Amino acid sequence: MTLELVKEWKSFGCAVRRYRHTSAALGGLQAVFSVVLPPAALADDAAPVPGVVYLSGLTCTDDNVITKAGAQRACAEHGVALICPDTSPRGANLGPEETAAWDFGAGAGFYVDATRAPWSAHYRMYTYVTEELPAVLAAGGLPVDGRRLGITGHSMGGLGALQIALKRPDVFRSVTAFAPICHPSACPWGVKAFTGYLGPRDEAAASWASYDPTELVARYSSSSSSGAPGSSSSVLHILIDQGGEDGFLKDGQLRPEDFVAAAAGVPGVSVQYRLQPGYDHSYFFIATFIDDHIAHAARALKQL
Amino acid sequence: MTLELVKEWKSFGCAVRRYRHTSAALGGLQAVFSVVLPPAALADDAAPVPGVVYLSGLTCTDDNVITKAGAQRACAEHGVALICPDTSPRGANLGPEETAAWDFGAGAGFYVDATRAPWSAHYRMYTYVTEELPAVLAAGGLPVDGRRLGITGHSMGGLGALQIALKRPDVFRSVTAFAPICHPSACPWGVKAFTGYLGPRDEAAASWASYDPTELVARYSSSSSSGAPGSSSSVLHILIDQGGEDGFLKDGQLRPEDFVAAAAGVPGVSVQYRLQPGYDHSYFFIATFIDDHIAHAARALKQL
Repeated sequence: MTLELVKEWKSFGCAVRRYRHTSAALGGLQAVFSVVLPPAALADDAAPVPGVVYLSGLTCTDDNVITKAGAQRACAEHGVALICPDTSPRGANLGPEETAAWDFGAGAGFYVDATRAPWSAHYRMYTYVTEELPAVLAAGGLPVDGRRLGITGHSMGGLGALQIALKRPDVFRSVTAFAPICHPSACPWGVKAFTGYLGPRDEAAASWASYDPTELVARYSSSSSSGAPGSSSSVLHILIDQGGEDGFLKDGQLRPEDFVAAAAGVPGVSVQYRLQPGYDHSYFFIATFIDDHIAHAARALKQL
Repeated sequence: MTLELVKEWKSFGCAVRRYRHTSAALGGLQAVFSVVLPPAALADDAAPVPGVVYLSGLTCTDDNVITKAGAQRACAEHGVALICPDTSPRGANLGPEETAAWDFGAGAGFYVDATRAPWSAHYRMYTYVTEELPAVLAAGGLPVDGRRLGITGHSMGGLGALQIALKRPDVFRSVTAFAPICHPSACPWGVKAFTGYLGPRDEAAASWASYDPTELVARYSSSSSSGAPGSSSSVLHILIDQGGEDGFLKDGQLRPEDFVAAAAGVPGVSVQYRLQPGYDHSYFFIATFIDDHIAHAARALKQL
């Protein structure tokens, strides 16, 4: 595995680097990701630091959060790295359907492993995020501690963060989300994506449920994880911020109320859901609250 | 004068608004600007707050600083507004030369009043920034105190901020700059722009000097201003941040050393020049240090 450094910048004392590598999970395509390495990770004798994987939303690349969210400040303060993958494979050349829409195909991988042709050959962002990306960080010698990873994300990426954290607490031991798509089986974006990547609901019900945070949280059991994420008391503490003036909330695409209701009474989960009045779905919203999400992850990961 | 609200967002508790209006200074073209209004300005009974005009660099619009610099945080903290005009007129339709290059014409107004045809009909960003924009804020009823304005900017916008502050301390009473073009008469960008907008150096020497910070600071006299900016002691305190790994610095486009040398020994001016190791010319650099620039302006403007 060769990790190619594409470019590097300095920001708030952090090194911001963009890397490229060949991805086995994505069927041999080139993949890019960006990483923010705090000053605490950059000294010659520095120990590896905790890291948070940030999953972006529809139409984004690894670049949006890096240039617009200002997370570098909090990464420097807390000594936490931020790892930002792309939102889909690129260059798969699967025909017009791949690029015709902004909510399916390129830029819209939904962090699932597609099971339907032609998508199944490349659209495997679930495996990319949960397995290949941590392995690539380690193999590339980046100063990120693979045993202390958290995950967060925005919108489609918030969906990814929640479903991944609920299934892979062995890999991601902290989770937060910004305006996540909480119940994809019950919203237009999710139904379209899951139908395309996984097959019709009646043929692929278990698969749909396995990527749906509202379904997953209802049956979450902290005993299924060895060393539960987010807390020393085996409770998964989930922080969700949601803008009150988010048009997609009003359109029923996000459905955080479904997730909160499903999580209520589940012993191993606590959800802090913050409805932020006046904020929309944009990076203005994310930038305003990302420090709290980095701090949430830092608290959890530094206990480990 | 009609001020049309194009869009509004919330960010760090601030209102971020984009406005459009017809500009007399720019020969009747439509002009846009963005403004960040801190919470202190938004209450029904709020008093107008101090404001800082931010002038962007080559190729930018009003949007870059709003989405990439994260200044909203410091605006909220210090109770200061940020006003962000465009970098040139748009839609003047002056022929291929207007859009062929990224360092002249559209996106590259250089904050001068052009005297050469065809530019002189529209490319009058100096008058736009120093006269029309403050008047538009007042006429539009925005809660910004026109008697407490500062100015800052990046690269070409840093050049604009410096030359404007040195000539119009009656309007702008605080000044800082990020990687400014300090000596345009002596660098390729400046020579190209001044030749095009103002005429050849030997025919327009006085005009060139009137827009050149290094020329202006050498002959700056605090007695020329009534109520000197930036200080109660009639000294103009100028803060300049410059990235040490800025390729344009190495190429001789910025020449801060010329400005610092010219300012040395001038009684009414003090220059704090900070060379920031490892930073380049990008918004990663600006975002890292913009809090200091907002704080610098807030200190000066709140004394008034």
